Amino acid sequence: MKVNVIVKPKEAVLDPQGNAVRDAMRHLGMPEVRSVRIGKYMEINVEGEDADLEKRLHRLCRDLLSNPVIEDYELVKTNGARKTSAIRKKQK
Amino acid sequence: MKVNVIVKPKEAVLDPQGNAVRDAMRHLGMPEVRSVRIGKYMEINVEGEDADLEKRLHRLCRDLLSNPVIEDYELVKTNGARKTSAIRKKQK
Repeated sequence: MKVNVIVKPKEAVLDPQGNAVRDAMRHLGMPEVRSVRIGKYMEINVEGEDADLEKRLHRLCRDLLSNPVIEDYELVKTNGARKTSAIRKKQK
Repeated sequence: MKVNVIVKPKEAVLDPQGNAVRDAMRHLGMPEVRSVRIGKYMEINVEGEDADLEKRLHRLCRDLLSNPVIEDYELVKTNGARKTSAIRKKQK
């Protein structure tokens, strides 16, 4: 099973890294940029595929890959192909 | 226009950060993990929408947001909704 995990700062949380990139883009010929928010993207390749595995993956997303206080994560099963077959978003 | 940019290490490039996360996941109750690769995820909100803007966005992705020597980027227009309406992948 292949999954993509996206971890990004919650809407209410300041993102100074994103603001720095936004300012850089404005200075480099793109004054139209309104906002930039930056997160992490992970491609995870796991052996097997069942509900228990997915549950454990979600637990690891919460406990290891993201900081639930300031970040949201999104776990997307891709099954090898580069498409978002099923988006599961967890708001904590 | 809203775009998502994903920047990730090229296949041939080592990803020590990903390997560290893979080992951590294996130790934290998921021995099935085969590999983890880690990249960046950016949500960019831009005023307006036309071909020239998109061209300039691609140039900035190449020049500012990614390092084309070791990274690939993917620019996806989302138009506000959380779906991947059109995937454009640039291999360099």
